[in-house]
Amino acid sequence: MGYEALTPGTMAARLGPLAAIHDHLGDPAQWQVREVGDGNLNLVFIIDGPLGSLIVKQALPYVRLVGESWPLPLKRAYFEYNALIRQDARDPGAVPRVFHFDEAQAIVVMEFLTPHVILRQSLMAGVTHGGLGRRLGEYCARTLFRGSDLSMKPLDRKADLALFAGNGEVCDITENLVFTDPYFDAEMNRFTPQLAPLVAELRADVALKVVAQQLKLAFTSRAETMLHGDLHTGSVMVSGDEAKVIDPEFATYGPIGFDVGMLLANFLMAYHAQPGHAETLGARAAYQEWILSVVSDIWTTFEAEFTQLWQTERSGILFPATLFEDQGHSSQPALRAVLAQIWHDTLGFCGVEMHRRTLGLAHIAEYDRIEDDARRADCEARGLRLGRDLMLGQGQIADIDAVLGLARHYNAKDKGL
Amino acid sequence: MGYEALTPGTMAARLGPLAAIHDHLGDPAQWQVREVGDGNLNLVFIIDGPLGSLIVKQALPYVRLVGESWPLPLKRAYFEYNALIRQDARDPGAVPRVFHFDEAQAIVVMEFLTPHVILRQSLMAGVTHGGLGRRLGEYCARTLFRGSDLSMKPLDRKADLALFAGNGEVCDITENLVFTDPYFDAEMNRFTPQLAPLVAELRADVALKVVAQQLKLAFTSRAETMLHGDLHTGSVMVSGDEAKVIDPEFATYGPIGFDVGMLLANFLMAYHAQPGHAETLGARAAYQEWILSVVSDIWTTFEAEFTQLWQTERSGILFPATLFEDQGHSSQPALRAVLAQIWHDTLGFCGVEMHRRTLGLAHIAEYDRIEDDARRADCEARGLRLGRDLMLGQGQIADIDAVLGLARHYNAKDKGL
Repeated sequence: MGYEALTPGTMAARLGPLAAIHDHLGDPAQWQVREVGDGNLNLVFIIDGPLGSLIVKQALPYVRLVGESWPLPLKRAYFEYNALIRQDARDPGAVPRVFHFDEAQAIVVMEFLTPHVILRQSLMAGVTHGGLGRRLGEYCARTLFRGSDLSMKPLDRKADLALFAGNGEVCDITENLVFTDPYFDAEMNRFTPQLAPLVAELRADVALKVVAQQLKLAFTSRAETMLHGDLHTGSVMVSGDEAKVIDPEFATYGPIGFDVGMLLANFLMAYHAQPGHAETLGARAAYQEWILSVVSDIWTTFEAEFTQLWQTERSGILFPATLFEDQGHSSQPALRAVLAQIWHDTLGFCGVEMHRRTLGLAHIAEYDRIEDDARRADCEARGLRLGRDLMLGQGQIADIDAVLGLARHYNAKDKGL
Repeated sequence: MGYEALTPGTMAARLGPLAAIHDHLGDPAQWQVREVGDGNLNLVFIIDGPLGSLIVKQALPYVRLVGESWPLPLKRAYFEYNALIRQDARDPGAVPRVFHFDEAQAIVVMEFLTPHVILRQSLMAGVTHGGLGRRLGEYCARTLFRGSDLSMKPLDRKADLALFAGNGEVCDITENLVFTDPYFDAEMNRFTPQLAPLVAELRADVALKVVAQQLKLAFTSRAETMLHGDLHTGSVMVSGDEAKVIDPEFATYGPIGFDVGMLLANFLMAYHAQPGHAETLGARAAYQEWILSVVSDIWTTFEAEFTQLWQTERSGILFPATLFEDQGHSSQPALRAVLAQIWHDTLGFCGVEMHRRTLGLAHIAEYDRIEDDARRADCEARGLRLGRDLMLGQGQIADIDAVLGLARHYNAKDKGL
């Protein structure tokens, strides 16, 4: 059978015969199927059976957000599957378990996370989650360290590099939508009208555009590790203190700081969006500080866990113990140099993500759901300015506290509802 | 037929039937075949026929320099062939023309360059070649620019990245022999005994080892362009004012500065080797200055040609005109930033190449043919010190004149024969 999009009506006939699925769900005749996809790219179904539930994700041959005019290859399901099994091996339990993969149909069937919600929902509702930053920092350190030449056998890493280089059409989206389109009047861009003067200012800033393109060069060429590739707060599901990372279909080899920076950016934007969701002036102040504590925890945990892995699992070809510990030389100066580069990259990618989510095609719900245009523009402008500071100040921003300080600085300019 | 190593005796029977070959050479019964391989890895034959001559290069399933104990896959001929046709397209005439490629037999049949000699021979004999630095600088700029995301369609570049990622076993050699082994007592290393105190000093220099490993990280992860991968003066053939680049079997995607740095290093080592070849004190002084003029010409031509290509052929996804020229903004600041990074990388790779060719497994003839150990050690020591300066001073060495100044500084310490 050639590729055919699933429907609730065809689900039992098509997936029911598969043992791994009906053993988990029970009798296909009793399945209840709902289509729940609200993302930009795919069909997503929940199947509820008498014994359990599963998620069925199927790629569409075009970008759902835009329509059939923007074709996108089905093989991205193959990359999602390959990323999921690697992430699960590198940070067990961090991602949904895979029950079935069908390359030709571009289907991944996986664990239904319940009662989890998309983290972005919590960030709009003002809900806190214990240990969130720690868990996400661990996830970043483990998946990014263990997918790199610090850990892997070199031929295995090169084979994975070649495999994920096939995900080029999806990388194209990132390359254009993230690093270029926001900085000129690209066709698919949109932004809140009140931002126009600031947008003009950013687009006239040649130094900023140079940095954005240097970051694009880093993204396209610095194949340091297998990235999630789209690690925003819509790619995290939470339930109480548990967090799981989903949707790695943008997986590719790239710079370690890319995932970390994109993740931090989405929290910092959620931070700046809070005044737009506050019921009364300052009502979200404590929640904003919680968000900043998550930002801080992500970085400090990432750094600590990366350090721990450096000390205990540095079995790859880079910075080998042969040259350092075995010679009685500490490898701490090397670790500091590596972390300094990751920090520098993280700040840059963080800034560019804050720009593209405000000026480009794909926006974030935290901003979009602020109904009043002027109010939304205020929130977004603070994020844009912070983003520029992070991109241009990469060499001067010493630590995560300096980032939090900048975020608070712009937030203090909020004039209330 | 499975893989079989060629011999002069089997050549006519095996290659004679191929039209592309016998049309060029004439009657196979009249072929004269010589094995001339003096490299580290392969069989190389010259076939002289009644109508012309050709080179036949065949990979061996092991490293010739070491023996059958070090297996190396035959597929490197596939990468050499793929690199040659790309280099020829990117800089027409820069490499030998390919007449035939046989993947299973790991054979590339190509143009016989005559009366060309390996550039290293000229550098030992004190022979100058007009326009050499200019030609090599052009070659670097053209092949490196045109293999990158500055020029290629992004999916084409990713396909090539994936293709050359298959050349991992050969990259392993570079990764270990260049960036790691020289800095500890690795089994296959050798060096002139009088260097022992300096070698101990270099191996105790933690900052130097950190830089060497950062360069290794750059080599393994920064897939900026298709490199030659082994661009030393033994990979260049010269005849009068003509220069051709051969032997790209180490081709892989890597940082632009790698090829440039390795090339400069080999000239700088040839410079320091001259006193060891001088018939009388100072007899090679003028020739040494000619070598430095080539170093200068390579870099300045590379920079000028890269700039020219930036202005006229920047059709890739990086630093697009859409963001700069089309907005009335000069892209010169971006070009300066890109060239500054390439310069920084070039200095580092230049330094590490000077170290590994003196302390590692593979040495250079210019040093090796200096018979007197103490004399050779003097020459080599100057190269080692210059290499360290280049690696540690990456941020402070402003231009190529500063490099020449350092080279002359160490040379001035020469005490004569």
